[in-house]
Amino acid sequence: MYLAKVMGTIVASQKYPKFQGMKLLLIQPYVSADKALVPQGSSIVAVDCVTCGVGDLVMFTQGSSARMTECTKDSPVDAVIIGIVDSVEVNGKALKNP
Amino acid sequence: MYLAKVMGTIVASQKYPKFQGMKLLLIQPYVSADKALVPQGSSIVAVDCVTCGVGDLVMFTQGSSARMTECTKDSPVDAVIIGIVDSVEVNGKALKNP
Amino acid sequence: MYLAKVMGTIVASQKYPKFQGMKLLLIQPYVSADKALVPQGSSIVAVDCVTCGVGDLVMFTQGSSARMTECTKDSPVDAVIIGIVDSVEVNGKALKNP
Amino acid sequence: MYLAKVMGTIVASQKYPKFQGMKLLLIQPYVSADKALVPQGSSIVAVDCVTCGVGDLVMFTQGSSARMTECTKDSPVDAVIIGIVDSVEVNGKALKNP
Amino acid sequence: MYLAKVMGTIVASQKYPKFQGMKLLLIQPYVSADKALVPQGSSIVAVDCVTCGVGDLVMFTQGSSARMTECTKDSPVDAVIIGIVDSVEVNGKALKNP
Repeated sequence: MYLAKVMGTIVASQKYPKFQGMKLLLIQPYVSADKALVPQGSSIVAVDCVTCGVGDLVMFTQGSSARMTECTKDSPVDAVIIGIVDSVEVNGKALKNP
Repeated sequence: MYLAKVMGTIVASQKYPKFQGMKLLLIQPYVSADKALVPQGSSIVAVDCVTCGVGDLVMFTQGSSARMTECTKDSPVDAVIIGIVDSVEVNGKALKNP
Repeated sequence: MYLAKVMGTIVASQKYPKFQGMKLLLIQPYVSADKALVPQGSSIVAVDCVTCGVGDLVMFTQGSSARMTECTKDSPVDAVIIGIVDSVEVNGKALKNP
Repeated sequence: MYLAKVMGTIVASQKYPKFQGMKLLLIQPYVSADKALVPQGSSIVAVDCVTCGVGDLVMFTQGSSARMTECTKDSPVDAVIIGIVDSVEVNGKALKNP
Repeated sequence: MYLAKVMGTIVASQKYPKFQGMKLLLIQPYVSADKALVPQGSSIVAVDCVTCGVGDLVMFTQGSSARMTECTKDSPVDAVIIGIVDSVEVNGKALKNP
Protein backbone atom coordinates (compact mmCIF):
# COMPACT_ATOMS: atom_id res chain seq x y z
CA MET A 1 0.00 0.00 0.00
CA TYR A 2 1.02 3.61 -0.36
CA LEU A 3 0.18 6.74 1.57
CA ALA A 4 -1.77 9.47 -0.21
CA LYS A 5 -3.67 12.65 0.41
CA VAL A 6 -7.20 13.03 -0.89
CA MET A 7 -7.12 15.96 -3.32
CA GLY A 8 -10.55 16.05 -4.90
CA THR A 9 -13.43 14.32 -6.58
CA ILE A 10 -14.15 12.92 -10.02
CA VAL A 11 -17.50 13.20 -11.78
CA ALA A 12 -18.11 10.80 -14.66
CA SER A 13 -21.67 10.32 -15.86
CA GLN A 14 -20.79 7.96 -18.71
CA LYS A 15 -18.99 5.01 -17.15
CA TYR A 16 -18.90 1.23 -16.93
CA PRO A 17 -22.08 0.18 -15.04
CA LYS A 18 -20.20 -1.42 -12.11
CA PHE A 19 -18.99 2.07 -11.13
CA GLN A 20 -22.53 3.31 -10.40
CA GLY A 21 -22.64 4.44 -6.77
CA MET A 22 -18.89 4.23 -6.22
CA LYS A 23 -17.24 7.36 -4.81
CA LEU A 24 -14.25 8.24 -7.01
CA LEU A 25 -11.55 10.37 -5.45
CA LEU A 26 -8.42 11.95 -6.84
CA ILE A 27 -5.50 11.16 -4.55
CA GLN A 28 -1.86 12.23 -4.54
CA PRO A 29 0.67 9.64 -3.28
CA TYR A 30 2.92 10.79 -0.44
CA VAL A 31 6.23 9.28 0.68
CA SER A 32 8.43 9.60 3.70
CA ALA A 33 11.59 11.59 2.95
CA ASP A 34 13.86 13.48 5.32
CA LYS A 35 11.49 12.91 8.26
CA ALA A 36 8.53 14.47 6.45
CA LEU A 37 5.72 13.30 4.24
CA VAL A 38 6.07 14.75 0.76
CA PRO A 39 4.03 14.33 -2.46
CA GLN A 40 5.60 12.02 -5.04
CA GLY A 41 4.45 10.29 -8.20
CA SER A 42 1.32 10.59 -10.30
CA SER A 43 -2.15 11.46 -9.02
CA ILE A 44 -4.51 8.47 -9.03
CA VAL A 45 -8.27 7.92 -9.20
CA ALA A 46 -9.27 5.57 -6.37
CA VAL A 47 -12.53 4.15 -5.06
CA ASP A 48 -13.35 5.11 -1.47
CA CYS A 49 -14.22 2.19 0.84
CA VAL A 50 -13.72 3.93 4.18
CA THR A 51 -15.77 7.13 3.89
CA CYS A 52 -12.90 9.59 3.75
CA GLY A 53 -12.89 13.16 2.57
CA VAL A 54 -10.76 15.77 0.85
CA GLY A 55 -7.66 16.54 2.92
CA ASP A 56 -7.47 13.16 4.64
CA LEU A 57 -4.21 11.21 4.72
CA VAL A 58 -5.10 7.71 3.56
CA MET A 59 -3.65 4.35 2.54
CA PHE A 60 -4.57 2.78 -0.78
CA THR A 61 -4.14 -0.61 -2.40
CA GLN A 62 -3.41 -1.20 -6.08
CA GLY A 63 -3.70 -4.00 -8.63
CA SER A 64 -5.83 -7.13 -8.26
CA SER A 65 -5.83 -6.67 -4.46
CA ALA A 66 -7.95 -3.55 -5.01
CA ARG A 67 -10.80 -5.91 -5.87
CA MET A 68 -10.67 -7.65 -2.48
CA THR A 69 -13.16 -5.31 -0.78
CA GLU A 70 -16.95 -5.59 -0.68
CA CYS A 71 -17.37 -2.37 -2.63
CA THR A 72 -14.95 -3.23 -5.45
CA LYS A 73 -15.43 -7.01 -5.81
CA ASP A 74 -15.39 -8.24 -9.45
CA SER A 75 -15.20 -4.65 -10.69
CA PRO A 76 -12.67 -3.17 -13.13
CA VAL A 77 -11.07 -1.25 -10.25
CA ASP A 78 -7.29 -1.11 -9.73
CA ALA A 79 -7.02 1.35 -6.81
CA VAL A 80 -8.99 1.50 -3.57
CA ILE A 81 -8.63 3.53 -0.38
CA ILE A 82 -8.55 1.10 2.55
CA GLY A 83 -7.76 3.25 5.60
CA ILE A 84 -7.54 6.74 7.03
CA VAL A 85 -4.12 7.26 8.59
CA ASP A 86 -4.04 8.71 12.11
CA SER A 87 -0.27 8.88 12.38
CA VAL A 88 2.98 7.77 10.79
CA GLU A 89 5.78 7.29 13.28
CA VAL A 90 9.41 7.14 12.12
CA ASN A 91 12.21 6.57 14.64
CA GLY A 92 9.82 7.15 17.52
CA LYS A 93 8.63 10.49 16.16
CA ALA A 94 5.32 11.23 14.48
CA LEU A 95 5.64 12.74 11.01
CA LYS A 96 3.65 15.91 10.51
CA ASN A 97 0.36 15.27 8.71
CA PRO A 98 0.80 17.18 5.44
CA MET B 1 -7.29 4.19 -12.22
CA TYR B 2 -5.58 7.06 -13.96
CA LEU B 3 -6.86 10.00 -15.96
CA ALA B 4 -5.95 10.18 -19.63
CA LYS B 5 -6.79 12.01 -22.82
CA VAL B 6 -7.70 10.04 -25.92
CA MET B 7 -5.07 10.91 -28.55
CA GLY B 8 -5.78 8.65 -31.47
CA THR B 9 -6.53 5.24 -32.89
CA ILE B 10 -4.56 2.08 -33.56
CA VAL B 11 -5.05 -0.10 -36.63
CA ALA B 12 -3.70 -3.64 -36.40
CA SER B 13 -4.93 -6.17 -38.94
CA GLN B 14 -2.73 -9.05 -37.71
CA LYS B 15 -3.61 -9.57 -34.05
CA TYR B 16 -4.60 -12.16 -31.49
CA PRO B 17 -8.18 -13.28 -32.41
CA LYS B 18 -9.74 -12.07 -29.14
CA PHE B 19 -9.00 -8.49 -30.25
CA GLN B 20 -11.33 -8.73 -33.29
CA GLY B 21 -13.96 -6.02 -32.94
CA MET B 22 -12.30 -4.25 -30.03
CA LYS B 23 -11.73 -0.51 -30.46
CA LEU B 24 -8.10 0.25 -29.65
CA LEU B 25 -7.28 3.81 -28.66
CA LEU B 26 -4.00 5.56 -27.96
CA ILE B 27 -4.29 7.46 -24.70
CA GLN B 28 -1.96 9.83 -22.86
CA PRO B 29 -2.08 9.71 -19.03
CA TYR B 30 -2.75 13.05 -17.31
CA VAL B 31 -2.08 13.98 -13.70
CA SER B 32 -3.10 16.79 -11.41
CA ALA B 33 -0.23 19.20 -10.75
CA ASP B 34 -0.32 22.83 -9.66
CA LYS B 35 -4.12 22.94 -9.99
CA ALA B 36 -4.05 21.84 -13.62
CA LEU B 37 -4.21 18.58 -15.51
CA VAL B 38 -0.95 17.93 -17.33
CA PRO B 39 0.29 15.03 -19.47
CA GLN B 40 2.69 12.65 -17.71
CA GLY B 41 4.08 9.21 -18.40
CA SER B 42 4.01 6.94 -21.42
CA SER B 43 1.21 6.75 -23.98
CA ILE B 44 -0.84 3.55 -23.69
CA VAL B 45 -3.00 1.44 -25.98
CA ALA B 46 -6.35 0.81 -24.27
CA VAL B 47 -9.58 -0.93 -25.19
CA ASP B 48 -12.64 1.34 -25.24
CA CYS B 49 -15.63 0.06 -23.23
CA VAL B 50 -17.55 3.32 -22.95
CA THR B 51 -17.77 4.61 -26.54
CA CYS B 52 -15.44 7.56 -26.16
CA GLY B 53 -13.66 9.53 -28.86
CA VAL B 54 -10.48 11.42 -29.61
CA GLY B 55 -10.14 14.44 -27.32
CA ASP B 56 -12.16 12.97 -24.45
CA LEU B 57 -10.81 13.02 -20.90
CA VAL B 58 -11.24 9.48 -19.61
CA MET B 59 -10.37 7.12 -16.76
CA PHE B 60 -8.66 3.81 -17.44
CA THR B 61 -7.94 0.65 -15.46
CA GLN B 62 -4.76 -1.43 -15.74
CA GLY B 63 -3.60 -4.93 -14.91
CA SER B 64 -5.85 -7.93 -14.26
CA SER B 65 -8.71 -5.55 -13.35
CA ALA B 66 -8.77 -4.50 -17.01
CA ARG B 67 -10.29 -7.92 -17.74
CA MET B 68 -13.27 -7.31 -15.44
CA THR B 69 -15.50 -5.78 -18.16
CA GLU B 70 -17.83 -7.57 -20.56
CA CYS B 71 -15.81 -6.44 -23.56
CA THR B 72 -12.39 -7.54 -22.23
CA LYS B 73 -13.27 -10.69 -20.23
CA ASP B 74 -10.69 -13.50 -20.54
CA SER B 75 -8.76 -11.50 -23.14
CA PRO B 76 -5.05 -10.62 -23.11
CA VAL B 77 -5.93 -7.00 -22.33
CA ASP B 78 -4.13 -4.98 -19.65
CA ALA B 79 -5.69 -1.52 -20.12
CA VAL B 80 -9.34 -0.53 -20.56
CA ILE B 81 -11.15 2.81 -20.61
CA ILE B 82 -13.97 2.64 -18.05
CA GLY B 83 -15.40 6.18 -17.92
CA ILE B 84 -15.58 9.57 -19.58
CA VAL B 85 -14.70 12.27 -17.05
CA ASP B 86 -17.08 15.23 -16.82
CA SER B 87 -15.08 17.13 -14.23
CA VAL B 88 -12.22 16.89 -11.76
CA GLU B 89 -12.67 19.09 -8.71
CA VAL B 90 -9.69 19.93 -6.48
CA ASN B 91 -10.18 22.08 -3.38
CA GLY B 92 -13.68 23.01 -4.49
CA LYS B 93 -12.53 24.20 -7.89
CA ALA B 94 -12.95 22.39 -11.20
CA LEU B 95 -9.69 21.76 -13.05
CA LYS B 96 -9.73 22.94 -16.64
CA ASN B 97 -10.35 20.07 -19.08
CA PRO B 98 -7.09 19.91 -21.05
CA MET C 1 -0.95 -2.45 -23.86
CA TYR C 2 2.08 -0.57 -25.07
CA LEU C 3 3.59 -0.06 -28.50
CA ALA C 4 7.04 -1.48 -29.14
CA LYS C 5 9.48 -2.23 -31.91
CA VAL C 6 10.93 -5.70 -32.26
CA MET C 7 14.70 -5.33 -31.83
CA GLY C 8 16.07 -8.84 -31.76
CA THR C 9 15.94 -12.39 -30.53
CA ILE C 10 16.86 -14.21 -27.34
CA VAL C 11 18.47 -17.65 -27.24
CA ALA C 12 18.24 -19.51 -23.94
CA SER C 13 18.92 -23.24 -23.96
CA GLN C 14 18.57 -23.72 -20.18
CA LYS C 15 15.06 -22.53 -19.30
CA TYR C 16 11.87 -23.46 -17.51
CA PRO C 17 10.28 -26.33 -19.55
CA LYS C 18 7.10 -24.37 -20.40
CA PHE C 19 9.24 -22.04 -22.55
CA GLN C 20 10.22 -24.83 -24.97
CA GLY C 21 9.07 -23.84 -28.44
CA MET C 22 8.15 -20.26 -27.50
CA LYS C 23 9.70 -17.54 -29.65
CA LEU C 24 11.34 -14.99 -27.39
CA LEU C 25 11.88 -11.51 -28.79
CA LEU C 26 13.61 -8.44 -27.44
CA ILE C 27 11.32 -5.45 -27.83
CA GLN C 28 11.78 -1.74 -27.17
CA PRO C 29 8.68 0.17 -25.97
CA TYR C 30 7.73 3.22 -28.05
CA VAL C 31 5.51 6.12 -27.02
CA SER C 32 3.78 8.93 -28.84
CA ALA C 33 5.47 12.28 -28.20
CA ASP C 34 5.42 15.46 -30.27
CA LYS C 35 3.52 13.73 -33.08
CA ALA C 36 6.14 11.01 -33.47
CA LEU C 37 6.78 7.56 -32.05
CA VAL C 38 9.93 7.54 -29.95
CA PRO C 39 11.64 4.81 -27.90
CA GLN C 40 11.08 5.07 -24.13
CA GLY C 41 11.61 2.80 -21.18
CA SER C 42 13.41 -0.49 -20.70
CA SER C 43 13.76 -3.20 -23.32
CA ILE C 44 11.61 -6.25 -22.58
CA VAL C 45 11.67 -9.95 -23.45
CA ALA C 46 8.25 -10.93 -24.82
CA VAL C 47 6.72 -14.10 -26.24
CA ASP C 48 5.53 -13.81 -29.84
CA CYS C 49 1.94 -14.96 -30.46
CA VAL C 50 1.36 -13.26 -33.81
CA THR C 51 4.36 -14.35 -35.92
CA CYS C 52 6.09 -10.99 -36.09
CA GLY C 53 9.69 -10.23 -36.99
CA VAL C 54 12.56 -7.88 -36.25
CA GLY C 55 11.66 -4.30 -37.22
CA ASP C 56 7.89 -4.72 -36.79
CA LEU C 57 5.91 -2.21 -34.76
CA VAL C 58 3.82 -4.27 -32.34
CA MET C 59 1.53 -4.09 -29.32
CA PHE C 60 2.27 -6.11 -26.20
CA THR C 61 0.39 -7.03 -23.05
CA GLN C 62 1.96 -7.32 -19.58
CA GLY C 63 1.15 -8.93 -16.24
CA SER C 64 -1.35 -11.72 -15.66
CA SER C 65 -3.14 -10.75 -18.89
CA ALA C 66 -0.08 -11.97 -20.77
CA ARG C 67 -1.17 -15.51 -19.85
CA MET C 68 -4.56 -15.13 -21.59
CA THR C 69 -3.34 -16.43 -24.98
CA GLU C 70 -3.22 -20.01 -26.19
CA CYS C 71 0.57 -19.94 -26.45
CA THR C 72 1.23 -18.53 -22.96
CA LYS C 73 -1.58 -20.13 -20.90
CA ASP C 74 -0.50 -21.23 -17.40
CA SER C 75 3.11 -20.31 -18.18
CA PRO C 76 5.42 -18.05 -16.16
CA VAL C 77 5.16 -15.39 -18.87
CA ASP C 78 4.55 -11.71 -18.08
CA ALA C 79 4.83 -10.13 -21.55
CA VAL C 80 3.32 -11.23 -24.85
CA ILE C 81 3.09 -9.61 -28.28
CA ILE C 82 -0.57 -9.58 -29.33
CA GLY C 83 -0.67 -7.56 -32.57
CA ILE C 84 1.32 -6.07 -35.42
CA VAL C 85 0.47 -2.39 -35.75
CA ASP C 86 -0.37 -1.14 -39.24
CA SER C 87 -0.82 2.49 -38.27
CA VAL C 88 -1.16 4.87 -35.35
CA GLU C 89 -3.31 7.88 -36.12
CA VAL C 90 -3.16 10.98 -33.89
CA ASN C 91 -5.38 13.99 -34.65
CA GLY C 92 -6.29 12.54 -38.01
CA LYS C 93 -2.67 12.10 -39.07
CA ALA C 94 -0.75 8.83 -39.23
CA LEU C 95 2.43 8.82 -37.15
CA LYS C 96 5.52 7.73 -39.06
CA ASN C 97 6.40 4.08 -38.43
CA PRO C 98 9.78 4.34 -36.68
CA MET D 1 10.86 -9.25 -4.11
CA TYR D 2 12.76 -6.14 -3.07
CA LEU D 3 14.98 -5.34 -0.11
CA ALA D 4 13.79 -2.66 2.30
CA LYS D 5 14.50 -1.20 5.69
CA VAL D 6 11.72 -0.90 8.25
CA MET D 7 11.37 2.82 8.99
CA GLY D 8 8.33 3.11 11.21
CA THR D 9 4.76 2.27 12.00
CA ILE D 10 1.34 3.31 10.73
CA VAL D 11 -1.67 3.88 12.95
CA ALA D 12 -5.06 3.86 11.24
CA SER D 13 -8.16 3.46 13.38
CA GLN D 14 -10.66 3.80 10.53
CA LYS D 15 -9.82 1.06 8.04
CA TYR D 16 -11.24 -1.78 6.01
CA PRO D 17 -12.21 -4.52 8.54
CA LYS D 18 -9.80 -7.14 7.14
CA PHE D 19 -6.91 -4.96 8.37
CA GLN D 20 -7.91 -5.35 12.03
CA GLY D 21 -4.97 -6.89 13.87
CA MET D 22 -2.51 -6.56 11.00
CA LYS D 23 0.76 -4.82 11.83
CA LEU D 24 1.35 -2.06 9.27
CA LEU D 25 4.92 -0.90 8.79
CA LEU D 26 6.44 1.88 6.74
CA ILE D 27 9.35 0.50 4.75
CA GLN D 28 11.94 2.13 2.49
CA PRO D 29 13.14 0.04 -0.49
CA TYR D 30 16.90 -0.45 -0.74
CA VAL D 31 18.92 -1.48 -3.78
CA SER D 32 22.43 -2.69 -4.37
CA ALA D 33 24.60 -0.02 -6.01
CA ASP D 34 28.37 0.37 -6.03
CA LYS D 35 28.79 -2.51 -3.54
CA ALA D 36 26.50 -0.93 -0.97
CA LEU D 37 22.83 -1.01 -0.10
CA VAL D 38 21.25 2.40 -0.69
CA PRO D 39 17.68 3.69 -0.35
CA GLN D 40 15.79 4.07 -3.63
CA GLY D 41 12.20 4.57 -4.65
CA SER D 42 9.06 5.41 -2.72
CA SER D 43 8.32 4.40 0.87
CA ILE D 44 5.66 1.70 1.11
CA VAL D 45 3.15 0.53 3.72
CA ALA D 46 3.51 -3.25 4.14
CA VAL D 47 1.93 -5.89 6.35
CA ASP D 48 4.36 -7.71 8.65
CA CYS D 49 4.19 -11.51 8.50
CA VAL D 50 7.54 -12.32 10.08
CA THR D 51 7.56 -10.29 13.32
CA CYS D 52 10.17 -7.76 12.33
CA GLY D 53 10.90 -4.37 13.87
CA VAL D 54 12.07 -0.88 13.05
CA GLY D 55 15.63 -0.92 11.71
CA ASP D 56 15.46 -4.46 10.28
CA LEU D 57 16.55 -5.15 6.73
CA VAL D 58 13.73 -7.16 5.18
CA MET D 59 12.39 -8.58 1.91
CA PHE D 60 8.88 -7.79 0.74
CA THR D 61 6.53 -9.09 -1.93
CA GLN D 62 4.13 -6.97 -3.98
CA GLY D 63 1.00 -7.43 -6.06
CA SER D 64 -1.32 -10.42 -5.96
CA SER D 65 1.52 -12.54 -4.51
CA ALA D 66 1.27 -10.44 -1.35
CA ARG D 67 -2.01 -12.26 -0.65
CA MET D 68 -0.32 -15.68 -0.60
CA THR D 69 0.43 -15.66 3.15
CA GLU D 70 -1.80 -16.83 5.98
CA CYS D 71 -2.01 -13.32 7.43
CA THR D 72 -2.94 -11.56 4.18
CA LYS D 73 -5.10 -14.18 2.42
CA ASP D 74 -8.13 -12.72 0.57
CA SER D 75 -7.34 -9.25 1.95
CA PRO D 76 -6.92 -6.01 -0.02
CA VAL D 77 -3.16 -6.10 0.67
CA ASP D 78 -0.57 -5.46 -2.05
CA ALA D 79 2.67 -5.50 -0.01
CA VAL D 80 3.85 -7.96 2.63
CA ILE D 81 7.15 -8.45 4.44
CA ILE D 82 8.17 -12.10 4.00
CA GLY D 83 11.67 -12.32 5.50
CA ILE D 84 14.30 -10.68 7.65
CA VAL D 85 17.58 -10.50 5.74
CA ASP D 86 20.69 -11.70 7.56
CA SER D 87 23.12 -10.88 4.80
CA VAL D 88 23.41 -9.90 1.16
CA GLU D 89 26.54 -11.20 -0.52
CA VAL D 90 27.76 -9.69 -3.80
CA ASN D 91 30.87 -11.07 -5.51
CA GLY D 92 31.75 -13.08 -2.41
CA LYS D 93 31.57 -10.08 -0.11
CA ALA D 94 28.80 -9.23 2.32
CA LEU D 95 27.25 -5.81 1.80
CA LYS D 96 27.13 -3.67 4.90
CA ASN D 97 23.70 -3.74 6.56
CA PRO D 98 22.52 -0.14 6.20
CA MET E 1 10.27 -10.74 -18.84
CA TYR E 2 13.41 -8.72 -18.34
CA LEU E 3 17.09 -9.52 -18.70
CA ALA E 4 19.24 -9.42 -15.58
CA LYS E 5 22.63 -10.39 -14.28
CA VAL E 6 22.93 -12.48 -11.14
CA MET E 7 24.84 -10.35 -8.63
CA GLY E 8 24.76 -12.27 -5.39
CA THR E 9 22.90 -14.25 -2.79
CA ILE E 10 20.50 -13.46 0.03
CA VAL E 11 20.55 -15.20 3.41
CA ALA E 12 17.39 -14.91 5.50
CA SER E 13 16.92 -17.31 8.37
CA GLN E 14 13.64 -15.81 9.62
CA LYS E 15 11.22 -15.97 6.70
CA TYR E 16 7.77 -17.06 5.66
CA PRO E 17 7.77 -20.92 5.76
CA LYS E 18 7.06 -21.34 2.02
CA PHE E 19 10.52 -19.87 1.31
CA GLN E 20 12.33 -22.77 3.03
CA GLY E 21 14.61 -24.39 0.49
CA MET E 22 14.18 -21.70 -2.15
CA LYS E 23 17.41 -20.22 -3.52
CA LEU E 24 17.17 -16.42 -3.32
CA LEU E 25 19.40 -14.43 -5.64
CA LEU E 26 20.06 -10.72 -6.00
CA ILE E 27 19.75 -9.75 -9.65
CA GLN E 28 20.37 -6.50 -11.51
CA PRO E 29 18.10 -5.81 -14.51
CA TYR E 30 19.88 -5.11 -17.81
CA VAL E 31 18.48 -3.42 -20.90
CA SER E 32 19.56 -3.10 -24.48
CA ALA E 33 20.82 0.41 -25.27
CA ASP E 34 23.14 1.59 -28.03
CA LYS E 35 23.85 -2.00 -29.09
CA ALA E 36 25.03 -3.06 -25.65
CA LEU E 37 23.49 -4.53 -22.54
CA VAL E 38 23.65 -2.05 -19.67
CA PRO E 39 22.39 -2.18 -16.06
CA GLN E 40 19.17 -0.22 -15.43
CA GLY E 41 16.63 -0.07 -12.65
CA SER E 42 16.53 -1.43 -9.14
CA SER E 43 18.15 -4.66 -7.97
CA ILE E 44 15.61 -7.40 -7.26
CA VAL E 45 15.47 -10.52 -5.10
CA ALA E 46 14.34 -13.45 -7.27
CA VAL E 47 13.82 -17.17 -6.74
CA ASP E 48 16.04 -19.40 -8.89
CA CYS E 49 14.18 -22.11 -10.84
CA VAL E 50 16.86 -22.92 -13.38
CA THR E 51 19.99 -23.54 -11.30
CA CYS E 52 21.90 -20.46 -12.29
CA GLY E 53 24.86 -18.83 -10.58
CA VAL E 54 26.48 -15.49 -9.88
CA GLY E 55 27.56 -13.80 -13.12
CA ASP E 56 24.96 -15.50 -15.33
CA LEU E 57 22.81 -13.43 -17.68
CA VAL E 58 19.24 -14.55 -17.03
CA MET E 59 15.59 -13.79 -17.78
CA PHE E 60 13.10 -13.27 -14.98
CA THR E 61 9.34 -13.06 -14.68
CA GLN E 62 7.44 -10.74 -12.31
CA GLY E 63 4.01 -10.48 -10.77
CA SER E 64 1.45 -13.27 -10.53
CA SER E 65 3.17 -15.07 -13.43
CA ALA E 66 6.13 -15.64 -11.09
CA ARG E 67 3.95 -18.19 -9.28
CA MET E 68 3.46 -20.30 -12.42
CA THR E 69 6.50 -22.52 -11.82
CA GLU E 70 6.70 -25.74 -9.79
CA CYS E 71 9.10 -24.18 -7.30
CA THR E 72 7.07 -21.01 -6.65
CA LYS E 73 3.46 -22.29 -6.91
CA ASP E 74 1.06 -20.74 -4.35
CA SER E 75 3.98 -18.93 -2.67
CA PRO E 76 4.26 -15.20 -1.89
CA VAL E 77 6.85 -14.83 -4.65
CA ASP E 78 6.74 -12.00 -7.20
CA ALA E 79 10.00 -12.59 -9.12
CA VAL E 80 11.46 -15.81 -10.52
CA ILE E 81 14.39 -16.57 -12.80
CA ILE E 82 13.11 -18.70 -15.70
CA GLY E 83 16.06 -18.99 -18.08
CA ILE E 84 19.78 -18.57 -18.58
CA VAL E 85 20.41 -16.44 -21.65
CA ASP E 86 22.96 -17.75 -24.16
CA SER E 87 22.80 -14.82 -26.52
CA VAL E 88 20.86 -11.67 -27.36
CA GLU E 89 20.94 -10.80 -31.04
CA VAL E 90 20.01 -7.31 -32.23
CA ASN E 91 20.03 -6.48 -35.96
CA GLY E 92 21.81 -9.74 -36.73
CA LYS E 93 24.60 -9.07 -34.25
CA ALA E 94 25.07 -10.68 -30.85
CA LEU E 95 25.27 -8.22 -27.98
CA LYS E 96 28.30 -8.69 -25.75
CA ASN E 97 27.45 -10.62 -22.58
CA PRO E 98 28.08 -8.05 -19.84
